[in-house]
Amino acid sequence: MNTTNRQILLASRPQGMPTEANFKLVEAIIPQPRAGEVLVRTLYLSVDPYMRGRMNDAKSYILPFAVGEVLQGGAVGQVVQSDHPGFSKGDIVSGMLGWQDYSLAKGDELHMAPTGAPVSTALGVLGMPGLTAYFGLLDIGRPQPGETVVVSGAAGAVGTIVGQIAKLKGCRVVGIAGSDEKNEYLRRELGFDAAINYKTAGNLRQALAEACPDGIDVYFDNVGGDITDAVIARINNHARIVLCGQIALYNLEQPDTGPRNFPQLLIHSATMTGFIVANYAPRFRAGLSELTAWLEEGKLKYREHVVTGLEHAPQAFLGLFRGENIGKQLVRVGAAE
Amino acid sequence: MNTTNRQILLASRPQGMPTEANFKLVEAIIPQPRAGEVLVRTLYLSVDPYMRGRMNDAKSYILPFAVGEVLQGGAVGQVVQSDHPGFSKGDIVSGMLGWQDYSLAKGDELHMAPTGAPVSTALGVLGMPGLTAYFGLLDIGRPQPGETVVVSGAAGAVGTIVGQIAKLKGCRVVGIAGSDEKNEYLRRELGFDAAINYKTAGNLRQALAEACPDGIDVYFDNVGGDITDAVIARINNHARIVLCGQIALYNLEQPDTGPRNFPQLLIHSATMTGFIVANYAPRFRAGLSELTAWLEEGKLKYREHVVTGLEHAPQAFLGLFRGENIGKQLVRVGAAE
Repeated sequence: MNTTNRQILLASRPQGMPTEANFKLVEAIIPQPRAGEVLVRTLYLSVDPYMRGRMNDAKSYILPFAVGEVLQGGAVGQVVQSDHPGFSKGDIVSGMLGWQDYSLAKGDELHMAPTGAPVSTALGVLGMPGLTAYFGLLDIGRPQPGETVVVSGAAGAVGTIVGQIAKLKGCRVVGIAGSDEKNEYLRRELGFDAAINYKTAGNLRQALAEACPDGIDVYFDNVGGDITDAVIARINNHARIVLCGQIALYNLEQPDTGPRNFPQLLIHSATMTGFIVANYAPRFRAGLSELTAWLEEGKLKYREHVVTGLEHAPQAFLGLFRGENIGKQLVRVGAAE
Repeated sequence: MNTTNRQILLASRPQGMPTEANFKLVEAIIPQPRAGEVLVRTLYLSVDPYMRGRMNDAKSYILPFAVGEVLQGGAVGQVVQSDHPGFSKGDIVSGMLGWQDYSLAKGDELHMAPTGAPVSTALGVLGMPGLTAYFGLLDIGRPQPGETVVVSGAAGAVGTIVGQIAKLKGCRVVGIAGSDEKNEYLRRELGFDAAINYKTAGNLRQALAEACPDGIDVYFDNVGGDITDAVIARINNHARIVLCGQIALYNLEQPDTGPRNFPQLLIHSATMTGFIVANYAPRFRAGLSELTAWLEEGKLKYREHVVTGLEHAPQAFLGLFRGENIGKQLVRVGAAE
C-alpha cells in the first residue's frame, strides 16, 4: 500500500471547452475510515459527459463540483479497510468515489460489483450507462416492433446499449456517430441497420431520410444541437424523444440558438422527456437483472476505451468531447489484489 | 330562404400575416343534399388560430385548404333539408362546415348541438376549445393540488377554460395575456391567482418569478416563442408542458430561431407533449359530460366575442392574431328559425 494519495482537483471552472489547466494533480495523505465508512482503493474511474455540467457553478439536478476539491464520479474500487458491517477488506465495490487513489465512502452508498462479468462493467453496461439506456429507451422511448429508433452519440457507452436493446425489441435502428470506424462497429458488430457519420454526411436531413424511409418513431438524444434539429424534422406522429444528453451544447461559451422546433412536436403529437437515471433508482435492481441476463446470453456486446493512470483522467475526460471513445471511456487507476 | 349562397374562399395563400386580400367573397347556388347528406344553414362560425396552418401548403395533422375553395371550420347550423335519418329540418347541429350561408354535410359527421346551453357553446366551452383545455390540461398537464399552472394565451377560448379547470383542481393559476383588460377579467371573473401582461411586463422572467414563487409545474402553451422561453426558464422538476398552440410563430415569414432550451427540460426531467384534440375523439363524450356539469354548476364561466355577418369572418379570423378577443371568437352568420 502506498503512503500517499494522489488526487485530481478542479483547479478552475472551465469557460467553454475544458482544458488540462482546469485540473490539478496533488498528493495528500491516505485517510482513515470512521464509523460506517469504508476506505476504497480506486481500480477504475468512469468519465462521463454529464460531469461537464458539474464543473459550472449552476443549479442542476446534481451539485456543482467545488473549485479546489477532488473531482468525483462513478468508480470501481477494492476495500482496503472497512468500518461498515457490509464490506470487508478485499471486496470489489462500486459507487461514487473521488478522482484519487484512495477514497473514503459511506458504506451505505457503496454496492458490491457484479461477479459474473469484469468489474469494469459496473461502470458501463451493468452500471449507470447501461441503466440509462435501459430505462430511457424502454420507459420513455417505448419502442414497438417495426418502429424506427434513432440514437445520437450512438457509439458511446449509452448509445451502443440503446441501439442493441432497440434491436432486441424488433426495431429498425439507426445510429448517428462521428467516424466511419465507429459506424462500422455499430453496423457490423452491434447489428445497427444503418449508421450516419454526421461529420461527413453533408446534408444530415437527407441522410436521415435515406436511413429512415418510414420516418422516426423514437429518438434517443445524447447530443442535441444541429443533429437533434435534423432528427426532429423527420419524426412520425406520436414520436417519443428521450432527452438524455446534450453534449453538443455543454462546452459553448454563449448559449446557443437554433430553429424553434416545438411546432414540429406539436403537429406530430410527439413527446419529449428529460431523462435522469437517478429517478429510476428504485428499479435499478430489476434493470440490472435483465441487462445481466442479456449480457450472459450474448445478446448485448460492449466495448471499453481504457486509459491507464490516474494522472490521465483529465485527458480521458476531455477525449469524450473529441469523440475519441468507442463504448465506455474508463480510466484504470489500479489493479485488484 | 335565400336563393344565393354567399361563400368565402381562400383567394391566395398568405405570406406571413394574412390580410383580407387572401379572402374572397363570392355567391353560389344553394346545393341539394344527396343520399346521407344534410343541408345546413350556418348560424355561427368558429375562427381558430390553427386555421392559419391550413392556409399553408404544408404537411400537417390536417389537410391544407385549397386555393379557390371555400374555407372550412367548426360551425353551428340549422338543418334546412335532410337526406340522413339522424337529422330533421330545424335541428340545430354542429360540425365542420364551410364559411358560407349553406353547407352540405355528411350526416355521419354532424352532431346535435347541446340543448341545455346556448348553441354557440358547441364552438367554445362545450366544443373543441373546451375539450382541448380539458384533455390537454388533465391528460398531459396532470395538475396536482398545490401545483402552479401557467397558461399562455390565457384570455382565449382555450386558455380561459384551462385556468378555470386548474383552479377546480386546486392549483395556483397564472395567466399570460396581452392586455390589462384581459388580465383583470382573468383575475376578477375567472379566479386566476395572477395574470401577466406580456406586452407591458418588461422582464417576463422576473414577472414570472414573482407570480410563481414556487416555480412552474404545468405549462399549457398556446403561444410559443419568447413567452415560452421565459416560462421554461422557471420550470420545476418533473414539469409537464402541453404544446397546444404556437400562435407567436404562425405568421412568421421566415422560420424563427430561439434559445436552445432542451437542456432545461433535461435537467428538470420535464416532459413536453404536442397536443391535438382530435386524438381524444373516443373520449369526447366523457369530457363534454364533465364540462357540461361544471357549466351547469356555475364552476365554469365563458365569454364570447361575436362578430356579426359572414362577410366579416376574415376580419374576425385576423383579429385572433391581434389578440382582439376575450374568450371565444365567433362569427354570427344567421339566426335560428
